[in-house]
Amino acid sequence: MLAASEELAEFEVWLPDEGTFRMTMTFVAGDPYPWPYDGDLRPENTALVIIDMQTDFCGKGGYIDGLGYDINVTRAVIPPISRLLEKMRKGGYHVIHTREGHRPDLSDLPANKRWRSRVLQKGGPGQPGIGDLGPCGRVLVRGEPGWEIIPELQPIDGEVIIDKPGKGSFYATDLDMILRQKGVRNIVLTGITTDVCVHTTMRDANDRGYECLILSDCTAATDVGNHNAALKMVTMQNGVFGAVSSSTALIEAL
Amino acid sequence: MLAASEELAEFEVWLPDEGTFRMTMTFVAGDPYPWPYDGDLRPENTALVIIDMQTDFCGKGGYIDGLGYDINVTRAVIPPISRLLEKMRKGGYHVIHTREGHRPDLSDLPANKRWRSRVLQKGGPGQPGIGDLGPCGRVLVRGEPGWEIIPELQPIDGEVIIDKPGKGSFYATDLDMILRQKGVRNIVLTGITTDVCVHTTMRDANDRGYECLILSDCTAATDVGNHNAALKMVTMQNGVFGAVSSSTALIEAL
Amino acid sequence: MLAASEELAEFEVWLPDEGTFRMTMTFVAGDPYPWPYDGDLRPENTALVIIDMQTDFCGKGGYIDGLGYDINVTRAVIPPISRLLEKMRKGGYHVIHTREGHRPDLSDLPANKRWRSRVLQKGGPGQPGIGDLGPCGRVLVRGEPGWEIIPELQPIDGEVIIDKPGKGSFYATDLDMILRQKGVRNIVLTGITTDVCVHTTMRDANDRGYECLILSDCTAATDVGNHNAALKMVTMQNGVFGAVSSSTALIEAL
Amino acid sequence: MLAASEELAEFEVWLPDEGTFRMTMTFVAGDPYPWPYDGDLRPENTALVIIDMQTDFCGKGGYIDGLGYDINVTRAVIPPISRLLEKMRKGGYHVIHTREGHRPDLSDLPANKRWRSRVLQKGGPGQPGIGDLGPCGRVLVRGEPGWEIIPELQPIDGEVIIDKPGKGSFYATDLDMILRQKGVRNIVLTGITTDVCVHTTMRDANDRGYECLILSDCTAATDVGNHNAALKMVTMQNGVFGAVSSSTALIEAL
Repeated sequence: MLAASEELAEFEVWLPDEGTFRMTMTFVAGDPYPWPYDGDLRPENTALVIIDMQTDFCGKGGYIDGLGYDINVTRAVIPPISRLLEKMRKGGYHVIHTREGHRPDLSDLPANKRWRSRVLQKGGPGQPGIGDLGPCGRVLVRGEPGWEIIPELQPIDGEVIIDKPGKGSFYATDLDMILRQKGVRNIVLTGITTDVCVHTTMRDANDRGYECLILSDCTAATDVGNHNAALKMVTMQNGVFGAVSSSTALIEAL
Repeated sequence: MLAASEELAEFEVWLPDEGTFRMTMTFVAGDPYPWPYDGDLRPENTALVIIDMQTDFCGKGGYIDGLGYDINVTRAVIPPISRLLEKMRKGGYHVIHTREGHRPDLSDLPANKRWRSRVLQKGGPGQPGIGDLGPCGRVLVRGEPGWEIIPELQPIDGEVIIDKPGKGSFYATDLDMILRQKGVRNIVLTGITTDVCVHTTMRDANDRGYECLILSDCTAATDVGNHNAALKMVTMQNGVFGAVSSSTALIEAL
Repeated sequence: MLAASEELAEFEVWLPDEGTFRMTMTFVAGDPYPWPYDGDLRPENTALVIIDMQTDFCGKGGYIDGLGYDINVTRAVIPPISRLLEKMRKGGYHVIHTREGHRPDLSDLPANKRWRSRVLQKGGPGQPGIGDLGPCGRVLVRGEPGWEIIPELQPIDGEVIIDKPGKGSFYATDLDMILRQKGVRNIVLTGITTDVCVHTTMRDANDRGYECLILSDCTAATDVGNHNAALKMVTMQNGVFGAVSSSTALIEAL
Repeated sequence: MLAASEELAEFEVWLPDEGTFRMTMTFVAGDPYPWPYDGDLRPENTALVIIDMQTDFCGKGGYIDGLGYDINVTRAVIPPISRLLEKMRKGGYHVIHTREGHRPDLSDLPANKRWRSRVLQKGGPGQPGIGDLGPCGRVLVRGEPGWEIIPELQPIDGEVIIDKPGKGSFYATDLDMILRQKGVRNIVLTGITTDVCVHTTMRDANDRGYECLILSDCTAATDVGNHNAALKMVTMQNGVFGAVSSSTALIEAL
């Protein structure tokens, strides 16, 4: 991981496009480059995005637990996200939470997504699929207990919650519109799971020109190899989807 | 990989939604399930999508070659894609090619995408970034030699070419519109690179409800570990993005 | 208005694309053509869309009332929509309601939209703008009394409600995704106001290939001239956005 | 039309969001308000958009001519657009041209759009529909003579051309992406026809938060009543889609 050189941390720069001086540039130590690329890291243009920290993905009796995956792996991100969230709230950064889930009538649930969740249960017959009743209510259905964000990471007033039917956070949602209204250009990605919802969101954000940072200790996957591979993919072609860092490095830079 | 059971291969079914009988169901042996989920595999509703088989990504003197990656890895997909393409053309399946590239004025090139390609050259100083002049013309610019699809996989009349500014094939393109007009529901993904453009396209297609199949021998990445990990990610949660198969299995099923 | 000829109403047709016979074709008398263009009007592929029948747009003390427009004009559509809604519910057609409104934190409210609503009040200084407190709660804010759909046209179980931040119903919503999952191809447009939200939705649906019908007696505008002009625009270039009809003609055809 | 008050034309303002002073504010006299709403009119953030000034829409032998409409009405906008274009080019404003048209294989042409253009010809049997061969080549097909932008308004180097399959300029195109990369916030709408492609584009831009101005003398419709009604619709609800002005007023303000 490249260190964010001290010399870069504070200097004046004439920005002809903006017709103004910016007094400081801020970089987070990252791989493969100190982030963001232009050093323009400020609360006004930066959002912490916390992906799908719902009971269904990391709580006891939720969807992922029912599938037979070990939820301790995904729950490990709760303490570092909590620390980062507290820091970024105090700093006045934008905070956005997402929830994967479907309308109670399942009108936004693709037939193949439902079929996969019902027919091929790793847990064997009897496991509830998406839309079916499980220990935490109907799986991945909006308004049900399992769909709620876990108590440790509850949103507070002024934080946006994006309800999304897919893995990515942009398709069929108002996320892009909200980021635009807020003037957000930098996105810090946290949550679960690294290789599925976090990565799809990062890819879609990157294609739209957002400058993205994914935090290795604030993301987790049901499979550790997938987690590591997802992080590595980001660094290919000199940062094809952005950069990788840790919450420690980010907190230090803020 | 689960075998497509013989018993599934041909039977009659009453489809109340369509008010008709369908005479056969067709499945491709796949992991984690025989694909497509509903056996409704026909030339009318199925497209072969060939991602970014351009000189810049797999030709001598192109962008990826200049970055120092071994293009023999990505070129290995050419023979199996060629065989599959010939078979699916004969069968009357839809064929769609994509090209990553930017307008000559670079108006659709995000500033961070350009910066990464120019500043952090793995090949060291002097390597051309996106938009700069290289051995095959301006890198990833539409109309330049490096941007062209390689001779071995040239599109023919009636095949759609999607020009895309991003890694995904849906953002800022007419792909979704065209798939809809054609009535396509099943998408077979091939091309390069597995973990970047192929996977982003697969994720975005899956969120829209398309039933996706990725072919292990018709996709490749600059890093073999990333290729394998990208395939494995597809199979998580019982096929979270669809299914994985090979060109051999697909050709057998068609 | 062209009559839907009796001869067209029932005959057999061989549809090579679908490999099946369809037994009947159904047309609604319309201008400039009997609708839908292909006679394929069935409950499974047709949705009644009721736009923005909220207190803020047609109720006493709501936003439009506060702006000084006569709400009797917009309320005139309630009886014909009610009759049509009852008929289409019984027939098993898809029913979709939309609501214009913003998040309580106004994160999805463009600055210029808010400014226009606050600075240029036709009702003079003191009128509440979007997001401000008025007689029916905060104007056009989700969860407030003025934002609710009026009692006469309350959605029932199984009917989709689309919450939208703009005039069109597709931008920043899941409407397109839901129509796709349901297999909807034909859209019947009703609600208010004809020239603003109804027309924007119709234009966006038409560009996506949906076959649209707007009903003259089930839509209304704050200005009668605008209502008439909006209907006329649809019929230009041989139905540039679809066709125009009435609830009477539609009920007769169903 | 409200005059842009002299007092507004030049003063200093502290913009806390941007941490800077802006030295001048610029307004164009407009209805129902001097435009843009915040006075932030600069070449860097403002684009002149010229819609569909193609032979098919305003040239002899083109599509609209063949439909029997009087092309002198639409051609009347050529001189004022030319003057404005020259002025804005010199001022360094962004210039964007659009072209409606379809791929030669018609894969992006909705079936109902084609049917309407072929079956219901106002000009009677024998008139070519979209995709058919006419006096200017295949109607509304990319690459054909009728599809080209007219000689008087040819784009020059550095000006973006958006090829769109629909009436709106955002659906299935990269327009939004390009406006975002350029930092455009204000859009000046010109071209043809007022009630169809210009209005659909204006509505879609407005929903995305762009601040829009439509110019009465630089837009035209095949029907004068529709032109006037389309302009009036913009001014409802205190500028529901933006503001209306003229090229004279805009040139004066620049």
